[in-house]
Amino acid sequence: MSLKHYRHLQEHFHSLIRNKVLEAGSKLPSEREIGEQFKLTRVTVRQALQSLEMEGMVYRQNRRGWFVSPPAVVYDPAAHLSFNIFVTEQGYTPHTEKLQQTLVAADSEVATKMNLAVGTPVLFLHRRRYIDNRPVLIEKMYINTTLLPGIEEEDLTQSLSQLLARKYQMSYRDMDLSFKATSLPEEATSALGITAGQSGLNIERINYTQDKQVLEIDYEYWRHDAVTIQIAIRD
Amino acid sequence: MSLKHYRHLQEHFHSLIRNKVLEAGSKLPSEREIGEQFKLTRVTVRQALQSLEMEGMVYRQNRRGWFVSPPAVVYDPAAHLSFNIFVTEQGYTPHTEKLQQTLVAADSEVATKMNLAVGTPVLFLHRRRYIDNRPVLIEKMYINTTLLPGIEEEDLTQSLSQLLARKYQMSYRDMDLSFKATSLPEEATSALGITAGQSGLNIERINYTQDKQVLEIDYEYWRHDAVTIQIAIRD
Repeated sequence: MSLKHYRHLQEHFHSLIRNKVLEAGSKLPSEREIGEQFKLTRVTVRQALQSLEMEGMVYRQNRRGWFVSPPAVVYDPAAHLSFNIFVTEQGYTPHTEKLQQTLVAADSEVATKMNLAVGTPVLFLHRRRYIDNRPVLIEKMYINTTLLPGIEEEDLTQSLSQLLARKYQMSYRDMDLSFKATSLPEEATSALGITAGQSGLNIERINYTQDKQVLEIDYEYWRHDAVTIQIAIRD
Repeated sequence: MSLKHYRHLQEHFHSLIRNKVLEAGSKLPSEREIGEQFKLTRVTVRQALQSLEMEGMVYRQNRRGWFVSPPAVVYDPAAHLSFNIFVTEQGYTPHTEKLQQTLVAADSEVATKMNLAVGTPVLFLHRRRYIDNRPVLIEKMYINTTLLPGIEEEDLTQSLSQLLARKYQMSYRDMDLSFKATSLPEEATSALGITAGQSGLNIERINYTQDKQVLEIDYEYWRHDAVTIQIAIRD
């Protein structure tokens, strides 16, 4: 490949995106059109775009092509209890899709954390969440149905924090969080339509009730360009 | 390349590392030796090892070869004020190297945050930090020398929180933190000896004095496999 043309392509889109000639969400020309313009093969064009994807500048939608990435949303775990609320407050539209919902027998890890006997039924929920129609995270949750009887009959694409408040007069209180930068596993990149091997953020969260019982355990994988965690430590 | 041999190589090292036949810190055979064993070219061996590096299983030391990654350290920003202390408490040996130290004129971003006039001298400090001799992060700091006169004459490879306490009777109190998964910029991968394009964690931190003045602004890039952020939110 021609390194000069490859760099020229990258500088071209860097400049258009930085100067907002191409705004967040705009569609790039097709890989074929870009190849003709920069005298590069389609394979090389795709490599260049994947490199811009790693930098968080563009993203790909399966079968629709490449788009300019929107800014990351800010997630402050101390202030933001609900994905739907913090996404909406920042001017974007949240959407949630349920991929799987099933009662499972708690394995020893989940049972220990929830202080249940191994084999107690818990609700497993697998969801994909969107911001402005872009899939940004997948999550797998284990929900303590012993504390939340009948939750499996509800619409579980809605905000769980709002459902807890309305149906059970419960709210999320204490939580334990961990964050890790990681290369996304294949199940996350394929569910999010991302190039294999891209980096992302892994969030694990345990939500407790007011009296310290575990309500749910949540494992999330986010696109790396979709979220910034912000925390204020005050003495 | 032979996909079968490539997968066999990956499964081989996965199994040895999971079952602790190869322990954290152990050296892998050379790329040449691995290539002979698995009937793969050296280029393909390196690709397979880079893929294991993305998963956080192995890391490369320039000119020394490939090693099994140690576990990530846990960083709890609400509890841990000093890299030296939390690394030591977890049974590892911290080390800090100064790459650059210079007085610079505050630009408008730094000046605004520090409530100083643009052009006021501030101390710029560029450091590389190690855990058990593995470089894990680079940081660039702007230090408010107006609040800390003479700090530039001290040994700035030491813990700044301990220096602040000893010389100025000051301590870190409030801080604003942000975390973002990112593909590491070239200056970070080259300073840390990582394959270009690997993912990492970007941490930005503003440290305040007891009376809300900005003491320092810190920009860090961490290897993705070196750190897990843990935060407990308590109501």
